Amino acid sequence: MSEQGFFTEATSAEVVISRNAKAKDARLAEVMAILTRHLHAAVKEIEPTEAEWFAAIQFLTATGHMCTDWRQEYILLSDVLGVSMLVDAINNRKPSGASESTVLGPFHVTDAPELPMGADICLDQKGEPMLVRGVIRSTDGTPLAGAKIDVWQANDEGFYDVQQKGIQPDFNLRGVFRTGPDGSYWFKAVKPKFYPIPDDGPVGKLLAALGRHPYRPAHLHYIVEAPAHGRLVTHIFDPDDPYIGSDAVFGVKESLLAKFDQITDPGEIAQAGFDRPFFRVDHDFVLAPA
Amino acid sequence: MSEQGFFTEATSAEVVISRNAKAKDARLAEVMAILTRHLHAAVKEIEPTEAEWFAAIQFLTATGHMCTDWRQEYILLSDVLGVSMLVDAINNRKPSGASESTVLGPFHVTDAPELPMGADICLDQKGEPMLVRGVIRSTDGTPLAGAKIDVWQANDEGFYDVQQKGIQPDFNLRGVFRTGPDGSYWFKAVKPKFYPIPDDGPVGKLLAALGRHPYRPAHLHYIVEAPAHGRLVTHIFDPDDPYIGSDAVFGVKESLLAKFDQITDPGEIAQAGFDRPFFRVDHDFVLAPA
Repeated sequence: MSEQGFFTEATSAEVVISRNAKAKDARLAEVMAILTRHLHAAVKEIEPTEAEWFAAIQFLTATGHMCTDWRQEYILLSDVLGVSMLVDAINNRKPSGASESTVLGPFHVTDAPELPMGADICLDQKGEPMLVRGVIRSTDGTPLAGAKIDVWQANDEGFYDVQQKGIQPDFNLRGVFRTGPDGSYWFKAVKPKFYPIPDDGPVGKLLAALGRHPYRPAHLHYIVEAPAHGRLVTHIFDPDDPYIGSDAVFGVKESLLAKFDQITDPGEIAQAGFDRPFFRVDHDFVLAPA
Repeated sequence: MSEQGFFTEATSAEVVISRNAKAKDARLAEVMAILTRHLHAAVKEIEPTEAEWFAAIQFLTATGHMCTDWRQEYILLSDVLGVSMLVDAINNRKPSGASESTVLGPFHVTDAPELPMGADICLDQKGEPMLVRGVIRSTDGTPLAGAKIDVWQANDEGFYDVQQKGIQPDFNLRGVFRTGPDGSYWFKAVKPKFYPIPDDGPVGKLLAALGRHPYRPAHLHYIVEAPAHGRLVTHIFDPDDPYIGSDAVFGVKESLLAKFDQITDPGEIAQAGFDRPFFRVDHDFVLAPA
């Protein structure tokens, strides 16, 4: 920086950061210093033409204009750039052996009904039946009694109930369960399907320009809570989904691939209480003590 | 990156970038790779809480919502972060000895009148009179005949004519001049005043939170063009302005400080054709051969 603090190409970031010396919020000043340093480094590496700079201004403006009370295009942008998953990872580092987190997503509802263990959360009989089961344990292996499991998922066409009000029954494919003394859980549902994130806005155009698709592989959402343990927000994924290796929002982690077995044996079908072949999904969760 | 390309905190940026392998536009893929790498590095250094991340989403959304046909809040954001000046610097590197550029700003108009050398561009007699003069030269010292000088400035209250339609006369404090054989230029105007960038939106709130003011020090805008030479877009600044060391948009460069002398000698006042003390501003410009 020159003695008087004037702008030069070489010292640009430091000149900008030095102006924040009187910021009252030290954390804001720290965040802006880091952002400014990386932003200037990126601009210097990109060397944008003035037309490219203006295209970026127009993209950011259009992304803002797309945001409404029910559409958050900037969260979508954060999602497709892997930033949402990175923030999730930073805020949910788990001790070794504990189940990994992934993003909450926009489709959770807080008032889903608590159901008896084993209930079918599919209220409209659409799709291929599925039995989901597993055990909730602490990191020392102890099964966790009284664990609360909040699950939600898209249907066989890739839509959540809240996206199809009046088409799907309210609270379709949602439920809250509580484990008994052995820590096990099980419920019935339907095999979920991959679905696209909203791609009719600037973020969808960016994905297309980058040769990327907008799909998320089929998954079930979980929030698992147990007394004296940390809360786990995660998904489990169908490892055979065509998009399993290319989730548009980078939500997939290796440890979140569940076991999806198609069961065709008449005895097992009858035992599970179904009338046709079904998918049996097995996935245990391990919570870290709080 | 894991074999299947799943997301991990350590490899986050590379996982995201690897998805752009099928981009048709190689430049877009390059730009997004650089942005992604720096954005992830910044997030890792900041370690934002989820609330901080959401505050950033809300800021970007509000900045977009502030943009209209006549207000570009994202350009203001680029300006106050020094990005506009950095892009200007990258695109206007000048050979040694040539005058330096600065940002164009939003107040240029393309149809300002061409005036005889020496004309007064102040059409309403408001403010302290000013005589501006200098020489346009090539980097080898040759005076440039036929150089076109397009000047515009704010008035003594810090407003451009286009901001005060009906209050200031049209084309007030704007003019286009052409140099004669000796390359010299001179015109009359009024001493400009510092003014704030629009600060009633999210960018103004950010500045306030950072303990920064929204002012630009007093300046005159120039576009200087001459046959067979590169175009120069720049300002000259009043070195005694209270904000000279803290331009909100970082437009000041050391070489753009002009000489502003207050002239009180009656003989000089009469010779310059004024009836009261005036400011004499001297600044030469050097253009690089194209």
